[in-house]
Amino acid sequence: MSIISLLTDFGLKDPYVAQMKAAIFSINPNICLVDISHQITKFSILMGAYCLACAAPYFPSKTIHVVVVDPGVGTKRRPIIVETKLNFYVGPDNGVLMLAAQKEKITHVYSIKNPDYLLSKVSNTFHGRDIFAPTAAHLTKGVKACEFGPEIHDYILPNFAKPQTTNSKIVGEVLHIDNFGNLISNISVQHLEEAKILTGTTIHADVGGRSLDLPFCLAYGEVYLGDFLVLVGSSGFVELAVNRGSAAKLFGATVGDMFCLYAMN
Amino acid sequence: MSIISLLTDFGLKDPYVAQMKAAIFSINPNICLVDISHQITKFSILMGAYCLACAAPYFPSKTIHVVVVDPGVGTKRRPIIVETKLNFYVGPDNGVLMLAAQKEKITHVYSIKNPDYLLSKVSNTFHGRDIFAPTAAHLTKGVKACEFGPEIHDYILPNFAKPQTTNSKIVGEVLHIDNFGNLISNISVQHLEEAKILTGTTIHADVGGRSLDLPFCLAYGEVYLGDFLVLVGSSGFVELAVNRGSAAKLFGATVGDMFCLYAMN
Amino acid sequence: MSIISLLTDFGLKDPYVAQMKAAIFSINPNICLVDISHQITKFSILMGAYCLACAAPYFPSKTIHVVVVDPGVGTKRRPIIVETKLNFYVGPDNGVLMLAAQKEKITHVYSIKNPDYLLSKVSNTFHGRDIFAPTAAHLTKGVKACEFGPEIHDYILPNFAKPQTTNSKIVGEVLHIDNFGNLISNISVQHLEEAKILTGTTIHADVGGRSLDLPFCLAYGEVYLGDFLVLVGSSGFVELAVNRGSAAKLFGATVGDMFCLYAMN
Repeated sequence: MSIISLLTDFGLKDPYVAQMKAAIFSINPNICLVDISHQITKFSILMGAYCLACAAPYFPSKTIHVVVVDPGVGTKRRPIIVETKLNFYVGPDNGVLMLAAQKEKITHVYSIKNPDYLLSKVSNTFHGRDIFAPTAAHLTKGVKACEFGPEIHDYILPNFAKPQTTNSKIVGEVLHIDNFGNLISNISVQHLEEAKILTGTTIHADVGGRSLDLPFCLAYGEVYLGDFLVLVGSSGFVELAVNRGSAAKLFGATVGDMFCLYAMN
Repeated sequence: MSIISLLTDFGLKDPYVAQMKAAIFSINPNICLVDISHQITKFSILMGAYCLACAAPYFPSKTIHVVVVDPGVGTKRRPIIVETKLNFYVGPDNGVLMLAAQKEKITHVYSIKNPDYLLSKVSNTFHGRDIFAPTAAHLTKGVKACEFGPEIHDYILPNFAKPQTTNSKIVGEVLHIDNFGNLISNISVQHLEEAKILTGTTIHADVGGRSLDLPFCLAYGEVYLGDFLVLVGSSGFVELAVNRGSAAKLFGATVGDMFCLYAMN
Repeated sequence: MSIISLLTDFGLKDPYVAQMKAAIFSINPNICLVDISHQITKFSILMGAYCLACAAPYFPSKTIHVVVVDPGVGTKRRPIIVETKLNFYVGPDNGVLMLAAQKEKITHVYSIKNPDYLLSKVSNTFHGRDIFAPTAAHLTKGVKACEFGPEIHDYILPNFAKPQTTNSKIVGEVLHIDNFGNLISNISVQHLEEAKILTGTTIHADVGGRSLDLPFCLAYGEVYLGDFLVLVGSSGFVELAVNRGSAAKLFGATVGDMFCLYAMN
């Protein structure tokens, strides 16, 4: 059974996600649907791209990921299929697919145009249901990606900030605040190695205008309840956390804030 | 594999939705379940009916739609099966099923009474789990609708307000506010045609006590960020929206408010 | 098709639940996943245990219930499999599995250690994805519970408060507040019988410091809109409710508050 994942900023109150699922099952009822999230902050291409990039590596290959974070729906932005060495990504040409797709090596990108594979009446406001969902469903039935429209090369690649590493210092930013209030940065293990910052040490953190000396741990439970720590989170990014508390609330930081780490010696 | 859709006002925190799903799988494990929404405003038959009517047309035929927005649970209101030319609807006899069912032509309505097809112990407070879910599951196993109980003719039909169209003016009301803050009215394309209001023109809107001249667009992105517009939404109803903003917040309007459109010339 | 249920405190915004589902499908794509809830109050072992115990009895036997309410992740608390006469429970050894498992008679408990059945790289912060999900998926493929690690006998059993029944009086506590605002106690039908409190009578309730004489009903709709009542809820526990309103809001009570009932005569 083919797997299609869904990631949108629709929320769960309205019938929009169900309309997409129904459109998929109307084309191919033998599909396994997995919701990645429907609570992406409205129109946040960054958060959508981040969540997709976190989830995609755990899916079996040949999964079709459908993403609808689509502020430009109904304008000239193109609906696209991104084919990688492992999977397919279907969604708007606004960069939201690319953080995940680039990790898997992009092989082709197609502009979706062939009306044979879309809902008979395409609205101007809901391409998730009328274009992206039917495209994914037809892909599971063996329609080749190149049959949906012409290959394109001028697709949009996002320019999400990359941390700057200098001698024993890393300057990054807050990429995401998760449901636990953890402040997740764009700093990965590789940057830690470059700056020679080691777990098990005390480090200095500047986040959102506040400064603290913090233990660099392996697990939340290594510090007392309510205490701050820094660790490499489960998706491979450095985060500032509080054992059983919300770092976001206690620190007052938000997405986009500076997130700096210094080795102390 | 049969499809059963679920629509409730239970929210997603409690184990109630899972209890329904478990009851269904205990009777027939080979079912594809699709959640339409579990965040209907508590006891809002209008919102439940609206969301069901939006989603149902996109499902394959022979879907069984189960709805539990049921303020009268445990009183004399009857549990019913509505059979249409296309699908089955299972839920309370309070009108919530009928906006969707009427579109498909109702053929029979049955009162659910046969204890053979209910959970062995029916509670007074949770017919979703004890009556509606088992009924839907047994329907997928080929039990005929007429075997659940006697046909009835005095079922409740909702009287949701219909807009009044006069020469170049339409008086409707706000039917729903979606997660994006769009104010969705009960005015459809047909009413626009009657009042000779055309997309691409500027129109006058009176909504929730405020008046504005607005562009009547085809897509949200046709106006600047933060600007108001009117368009026909993806489910076929006229809505007042803000490009990447919340019309509900900026207008201060709510469900039930008057929603009037005038052609300007 | 095997059923795996999922119960976590992850919320639905982040990609964590999808990572677990993807890890499961990567091992066995022929599985039916059912979400019990992902909105357990963060780190609330009591609420997780309560919701699991409410939902589990409605699932077909041989279901594998995976629970991740896991404040001690990364510390010495053990990941375990609980085998009962009916089902399997997979999660942390902190008591969260046991309220449900004890009802079904626990036969064996195993500590999960065998690296053959875990993700190749186990993080310190997300055992749901790296240990519990793969364990459940391998169980559905016929791997025996004893192959995951050694049997243990010193697992943690929760000591959730039990109500005290004296002559015509029951002293319990508020166990859960559901999405409707119903105040659900730990008092069950059996305690009512012991204290000789009967439905259909008026009883006296002391909840969260407030006292009221209330009708003991069979259904919410037996009292006027906005009126208080007491009834046995759908999961078998006595609750204080308001017909179409929120008892929690109107009473100002919260989880852990005293919940006393007296027969009046």
